[in-house]
Amino acid sequence: MGRCATLLIGAGLVLLPVGCAGRVVGAAPRDRVNTCRAIQTVLEDQADAWNRGDVAAFMTGYWKSPELAFVSGDRVTRGWQATLDRYHKRYPTQEAMGRLVFSELNVRELARDAALVSGRWALDRGQPIGGRFTLLFRLRDDRWVIVYDHTSSGEVPAGSG
Amino acid sequence: MGRCATLLIGAGLVLLPVGCAGRVVGAAPRDRVNTCRAIQTVLEDQADAWNRGDVAAFMTGYWKSPELAFVSGDRVTRGWQATLDRYHKRYPTQEAMGRLVFSELNVRELARDAALVSGRWALDRGQPIGGRFTLLFRLRDDRWVIVYDHTSSGEVPAGSG
Repeated sequence: MGRCATLLIGAGLVLLPVGCAGRVVGAAPRDRVNTCRAIQTVLEDQADAWNRGDVAAFMTGYWKSPELAFVSGDRVTRGWQATLDRYHKRYPTQEAMGRLVFSELNVRELARDAALVSGRWALDRGQPIGGRFTLLFRLRDDRWVIVYDHTSSGEVPAGSG
Repeated sequence: MGRCATLLIGAGLVLLPVGCAGRVVGAAPRDRVNTCRAIQTVLEDQADAWNRGDVAAFMTGYWKSPELAFVSGDRVTRGWQATLDRYHKRYPTQEAMGRLVFSELNVRELARDAALVSGRWALDRGQPIGGRFTLLFRLRDDRWVIVYDHTSSGEVPAGSG
């Protein structure tokens, strides 16, 4: 089995899809690569939207449903609208949003319509911040969308900002 | 589809399996309930082990593999042994371990051999702490084990300790 060795760097995102981790019964290698690429594209589009300050476009990566779940710290935000509201509240200006970089991306395809994606996020801004995310992607209406997001943050090493 | 409305309370864990969220093509309702119960049992055994100070027994809930991943804050701990070492380092005494309670458990069965489990954890101790977890369970050698764990913590509301 291949492993999705993917690198997303800054604005001009560099994608190096090598394959996807996980075994899906009956799924051809081509299907796995397609899933991996489709999910990378969603995340690439999200980072592009974020970096031009367009939170609404960023949110198209999420399932537009009251069942969307966004977990952070000890809290769960339920629903697409509440998740959008949370982003607006926490990142009210483009300065606060900073420049989003995803890295260390790993895609585990679990079924033809489900994949677990993990990686690192970082915001390059006056006070830089970074952490880890775990995303459950599902295929909804022939489109891969995030239906569950668990995000955590940590201290950014000195000198990284 | 049912939803896994599960309550795990303290030492005498109360389990109320109502069903499992998620749709697995070809999986009979009985299979889904069995998966849900099997995973609940793993977590119940983990809490029991933790609450008697037995970290080694607690660790049997994890996949004994160098590929196990444990994510917290901005860090990833890779491998079963490193994860065990981390627990020993962070919880050196039974006092530090406190009493573990899992709650708000939700099991999403994604395939016959994969389920995403989310919920809340809390340690009742001198300085209480709590947060959220997201676990990827896989069926390995006919046993459900955690292959990926993303845990975050938050402030505990005043008066809860």
